[in-house]
Amino acid sequence: MDRTGTNLPAVGEYNQTVVLDAIRRRPEGITRSELAALTALSGMTVTKVCRRLLDAGLVDEHGTRTSGPGKPAAVVKLNPSGGFAVGVHIDPAAVTYVLVDLSGTVRDHSRTGTPTAGDPSAIIDEMANAIEALIAGSAVDRSRILGIGIASPGPVNVDDGVLLNPPMMPNWHRVALRRALAEATGLPVLLEKDTTAAVVAELWFAGPGSSRDFAFMYYGTGLGTGLSVSGEVVRGISSNAGDAGHITVDPEGPVCTCGRRGCVGYITVPRALVERAVLDGVLSVAEAGNLEHMVDVDAAFSRLADLAATGNPEANAILTDAARSLARAIVVIVNLLDIDEVIFGGPFWARVSPVILDALPDAVRSDPALIPPHPIRFAQSAIPVDVAAVGAATLVLDNTFSPRPSALLLAAE
Amino acid sequence: MDRTGTNLPAVGEYNQTVVLDAIRRRPEGITRSELAALTALSGMTVTKVCRRLLDAGLVDEHGTRTSGPGKPAAVVKLNPSGGFAVGVHIDPAAVTYVLVDLSGTVRDHSRTGTPTAGDPSAIIDEMANAIEALIAGSAVDRSRILGIGIASPGPVNVDDGVLLNPPMMPNWHRVALRRALAEATGLPVLLEKDTTAAVVAELWFAGPGSSRDFAFMYYGTGLGTGLSVSGEVVRGISSNAGDAGHITVDPEGPVCTCGRRGCVGYITVPRALVERAVLDGVLSVAEAGNLEHMVDVDAAFSRLADLAATGNPEANAILTDAARSLARAIVVIVNLLDIDEVIFGGPFWARVSPVILDALPDAVRSDPALIPPHPIRFAQSAIPVDVAAVGAATLVLDNTFSPRPSALLLAAE
Repeated sequence: MDRTGTNLPAVGEYNQTVVLDAIRRRPEGITRSELAALTALSGMTVTKVCRRLLDAGLVDEHGTRTSGPGKPAAVVKLNPSGGFAVGVHIDPAAVTYVLVDLSGTVRDHSRTGTPTAGDPSAIIDEMANAIEALIAGSAVDRSRILGIGIASPGPVNVDDGVLLNPPMMPNWHRVALRRALAEATGLPVLLEKDTTAAVVAELWFAGPGSSRDFAFMYYGTGLGTGLSVSGEVVRGISSNAGDAGHITVDPEGPVCTCGRRGCVGYITVPRALVERAVLDGVLSVAEAGNLEHMVDVDAAFSRLADLAATGNPEANAILTDAARSLARAIVVIVNLLDIDEVIFGGPFWARVSPVILDALPDAVRSDPALIPPHPIRFAQSAIPVDVAAVGAATLVLDNTFSPRPSALLLAAE
Repeated sequence: MDRTGTNLPAVGEYNQTVVLDAIRRRPEGITRSELAALTALSGMTVTKVCRRLLDAGLVDEHGTRTSGPGKPAAVVKLNPSGGFAVGVHIDPAAVTYVLVDLSGTVRDHSRTGTPTAGDPSAIIDEMANAIEALIAGSAVDRSRILGIGIASPGPVNVDDGVLLNPPMMPNWHRVALRRALAEATGLPVLLEKDTTAAVVAELWFAGPGSSRDFAFMYYGTGLGTGLSVSGEVVRGISSNAGDAGHITVDPEGPVCTCGRRGCVGYITVPRALVERAVLDGVLSVAEAGNLEHMVDVDAAFSRLADLAATGNPEANAILTDAARSLARAIVVIVNLLDIDEVIFGGPFWARVSPVILDALPDAVRSDPALIPPHPIRFAQSAIPVDVAAVGAATLVLDNTFSPRPSALLLAAE
């Protein structure tokens, strides 16, 4: 548990990230004196840091602003083209690639089917080619690309950059993705769980006053739960934090892969809802298709969501039950971590959000098991469908540019 | 989400806490050059900081040590009498008072029944008197007492220093304990949940190589769950983090206060185990006593634990079932936070630990719902019975002396 001390060079680097972060979160621009007030740094320090950021091409000056009796002050803004990152989201249904600039704007985007080749090197080639095509198709200076972030379903081995046995992806066992992709592209590569990437994205884009303690309910092929505690993403000891799937929410529900009934991650995922829709006669067997294939699940889930949105009572009941099940798991998480916000997103979320958010907040707030004595907000990610891909890109931006007090600490010998 | 910068005075104060912390964790003593290697600070900085700590009476020099060809180096040790803190643990069964020195050693200790007066000012007087008697009875210089820490069952309002409706304590609703006790004693007072205090104690006493990501299962009148993430206690948005009680672990179990069956915090607590022991004929109604009174529950629980320890199969089955129920809740927590250690303690823990720890670790490790791919350690707190009272005292020591990178950040205007 030993902590190390800090010194002046570490302070200088840290203060630079603080100033860049304050500029980045104000797309309308900010003056040096406003920066000094916001960061509690001296005017001289802010001026020195801004000079370095200008030289590095990370910020620009955009005219002047007059406030009060002084002379007009230069307005500093982020240079969105000062840096780029590639984000890759691997999902059982598809792989999504995005090229994101320093402001977080998606400059380019592509999607392919998830590689099914049995040979890992063919998978790597396919992904490297997709990344090169994305970069080549954009007008971006390759030397400004900071790296590649990969978001994948867990469990992962982040240290070795390996996907461990992700569910529903039979050919992806123990693929040493990070190193192979770094060798194939010559770019640094980071790997994290999709839910971790989603939380990093929320924190990266968070405006002033945003919650620092929240759960991100990631509704994809599976259900994941990313966590932020005191404004830092919870990674856990092996970077596999964020699995709430085996919380029992319906003791009479169907039997999960773990052998118990009513696990939230088994009964609320798209495939389970489509299966129930078939059992309840809401969808025909033909409409549901082959539920071993996520492409069919995806299409059938859209039909179910459409029916619920247009007032079909049986379809609505299926989604409302899912909302109540999710609510019970959320109460467990809120009680444990005393968070004040729950954010929803992920590739399957947007289609069902109106019906689910009609029932879920009340189910949480009126739950007799809810402990913390404060309001809880329910929000949707600003990037609901591609949050994991954009999050994967923000892993790189966050790693390079976010201020972290822990970065102040010196390395022990 | 804005972060502020840092400057030289903040660095100086932080480095002082780093050096004191490194000295404190080495009761055998440490030389200045060893401190420099450990903290990554320059020899000059370490020398300056040690001078200040010596002047403040927080450390002493104890002879010299020779290592290698150089001249003998002075050995610096913590001065345990450099500072003291009072810890108070409020529990439905008793209030425990401890006086702890800077090394964490309990210098004095007292226990009273929990005040039952209906009038809050009488309660405060009773507690203030007990604290004054504790201090007076010790040989401690009052000016060296840094403050009072209070650990209480949740929920609490830490900002206002108020206990909110703690279960099983009917006369304790909305007692504004912190301010009243500060006025009565003239000492600074901190208030936290008992589980938070337990985690702060574990972190305060943690040796090199201890886990930074753990859950503390606090087994008292109720079941609490303190959490450490990356070496920081998880307090949550309202300091009420750490309630795992409503995790469903036995869908066929008895009905909890929340209206659902088999909540872990309902079926595994001492009173519930004693009730089952009566139902199963392990204890007679007379042996169990009046289970509305925690004193009777306490005595009956000891009998049950003794029977289990001496091989009574029915008593053993009750505790083994409790171990399996706890294991299911622990799997939920491990999956969510990806922790690698679970620590047990609290006033009722020691009596049942041999039987419970016989069954619990295997139940966790072999659970088909367990996700993280790494070993999990199971440990007992070094201060099992009084961990909340000692933890309450360490709240004060931690608040004064622990190095926190976040303390480096300047306050914004």
